[in-house]
Amino acid sequence: MKTDVAIVGAGPAGLLLGHLLCAAGIAVVIVERQSAAHVLSRIRAGVLETTTTDIMRQLGLDQRLKIEGLRHEGFHLSYGARSIRIDIAALTGKHVTVYGQTELTRDLMDAAPQRGLEILYEAADVSLHDIETAAPRLTFHRNGSAAMLESRFIIGCDGFHGVCRRAIPAGAGRSFEKVYPFGWLGILADVPPCDPELIYANHANGFALASMRSEARSRYYVQVPSDTNLEDWPDDRVWDELAIRLGPDAAAGMTRGPAIEKSIAPLRSFVFEPMRHGNLFLAGDAAHIVPPTGAKGLNLAASDVTYLASALTDFFRHGQEAALALYPDRALARVWKSERFSWFLTKLMHNFPDDSAFDRRIQHAELDYIASSKAAQTAIAENYVGLPL
Amino acid sequence: MKTDVAIVGAGPAGLLLGHLLCAAGIAVVIVERQSAAHVLSRIRAGVLETTTTDIMRQLGLDQRLKIEGLRHEGFHLSYGARSIRIDIAALTGKHVTVYGQTELTRDLMDAAPQRGLEILYEAADVSLHDIETAAPRLTFHRNGSAAMLESRFIIGCDGFHGVCRRAIPAGAGRSFEKVYPFGWLGILADVPPCDPELIYANHANGFALASMRSEARSRYYVQVPSDTNLEDWPDDRVWDELAIRLGPDAAAGMTRGPAIEKSIAPLRSFVFEPMRHGNLFLAGDAAHIVPPTGAKGLNLAASDVTYLASALTDFFRHGQEAALALYPDRALARVWKSERFSWFLTKLMHNFPDDSAFDRRIQHAELDYIASSKAAQTAIAENYVGLPL
Repeated sequence: MKTDVAIVGAGPAGLLLGHLLCAAGIAVVIVERQSAAHVLSRIRAGVLETTTTDIMRQLGLDQRLKIEGLRHEGFHLSYGARSIRIDIAALTGKHVTVYGQTELTRDLMDAAPQRGLEILYEAADVSLHDIETAAPRLTFHRNGSAAMLESRFIIGCDGFHGVCRRAIPAGAGRSFEKVYPFGWLGILADVPPCDPELIYANHANGFALASMRSEARSRYYVQVPSDTNLEDWPDDRVWDELAIRLGPDAAAGMTRGPAIEKSIAPLRSFVFEPMRHGNLFLAGDAAHIVPPTGAKGLNLAASDVTYLASALTDFFRHGQEAALALYPDRALARVWKSERFSWFLTKLMHNFPDDSAFDRRIQHAELDYIASSKAAQTAIAENYVGLPL
Repeated sequence: MKTDVAIVGAGPAGLLLGHLLCAAGIAVVIVERQSAAHVLSRIRAGVLETTTTDIMRQLGLDQRLKIEGLRHEGFHLSYGARSIRIDIAALTGKHVTVYGQTELTRDLMDAAPQRGLEILYEAADVSLHDIETAAPRLTFHRNGSAAMLESRFIIGCDGFHGVCRRAIPAGAGRSFEKVYPFGWLGILADVPPCDPELIYANHANGFALASMRSEARSRYYVQVPSDTNLEDWPDDRVWDELAIRLGPDAAAGMTRGPAIEKSIAPLRSFVFEPMRHGNLFLAGDAAHIVPPTGAKGLNLAASDVTYLASALTDFFRHGQEAALALYPDRALARVWKSERFSWFLTKLMHNFPDDSAFDRRIQHAELDYIASSKAAQTAIAENYVGLPL
């Protein structure tokens, strides 16, 4: 098999890029290790910047997003007995859209056949070859036989644990990492949300987040120690703890229900530099991870592929390599700003076990300052809706 | 001796408060351990918020300040080859005034006799008694004899190392502290400043600050390890290092000259809560220390004594205790916000030896973000000129 661009990974990064390249008339094939059903079973963030929704609109794939997506014009930072509403519409003139990553992935997958986007699911043992040449290749096994995909470029959209970043020789790149001393225990339930907007809560017991996927499906999180066993958190304990951490107003609005999904995710900041080696380019989680606070993960993947689709189009349509050469620096400039915001919001809202009494007072002083300052609220809002591309 | 208010310490906090109380017709005596000349020999910050200059104007003691004070409408954050000008006038409509703390202290001392403000210098062995009663007393030795000063209230304006905070029984208060793993080596020289505005520089070698006391007197600082010996830093080494850290533009404008003062100061954040015990009240450095980044120390003392003078006036003129009761919370709310800003600016601009590569990238990402965001610049500017009282 031969194509112009071989994409590894059919998560949102790979699917968005695949559709963008297809729409530009560039030959592209996506190779995915898992089945479509497995990819769709991953529960991830659900707050979309216009960076992301703009791509869906541009692709003409936003019919369901427009109907089912919830327009959010603000969110809450709660601490102690206080709550700060960050009025993102008033402060920035923009908004975010609540729409599950799973739903976005489904829309992109469903549209692939009609758009001629080829996705090879259940490709085992994917391996990269000759990435430093102009004819890089992927080999893999599928349906019981060995396969090879030749291309001009390989794009690694295969996430943090994928093979693409690992194909870059040691010494040709550098990793930056921070692991946080806690995780998020998430619960998904088919109950209406406790509040029409998201509530990020800083509580002495730890962080909590009240979020939603739709008006009938809620997503809640509580900060837990890294070594927590899920069995120690039956549904009732999660709901009880949410009621404490989110405060009496949210608790009064909260509807309890059985968890349809419950899991613990670690929190990590990670960046790999540069986002290119030879003719392999990285995009999304393959190159960087943010802690989920602020929901930047999917949106950063969207900005990566926006830059990359434009650069690849320049190359294949106009024979210009300049934008491709600029991609790593261009993408990383936005990545690091989102890394900073995700780190900042994580630091601001969580209970860090090693923090001194001084650190805790500083955290509350920062929240008090934010409560009093339009400039500080604007800085948070403009990051939340997404910095300019 | 007997008075209404006994103030311990004739630094700026004690002198400002003494003058404010005098002007309100309240009997006040200041007791100072050192000589006036010794107090004036202390070199401290020189950037005044309007919080501070407003008191001088209100007291009618701003004749020299108005003539010699330099109105600053912006300052620079430099890093790598970039520099961000924080245009405080455009962003906040306000400005700061560069005027040495020594000069402010001299103005207040010089005016004391004509205003009837009694200052007892060189009072040794100052000791506090009966602070939990309505008749607290100071005892001390002066001119070879024992003395006693009876009052209704004692105000501790005697700095971090003073006796007043230590007179509060263990368990009646709580300290919050952060010690930074470096100090500032400061050099004062009678040369014109390298730039009309202050330059805060984040450099791989460490922080540097180009500052001034007047158009003919410059004050520079370089970050040094905590265990640095002053003898290892002859003047030439300081100037050479400043030229590197401040960058080529500042270096080109820099005039070298012999140091008329050179010293190393540690960096510390410290807050004592509450700022009252019985009829002893604390103000300024006696209750809190900020690292010098952002020059908040003197200005926080000014806001403390503004609150305190108003509350004591309510008490003595109108018999109302409510404002005095509110003083600790009112003062601490502003103190913690200034602590946060001083900590933030210190974190942003210094080289922390224990920072990971990730932390350093985040620091630069924060500077890149600030460079691109009016909201982030406004947040810095509004703290720099002083949050509202």
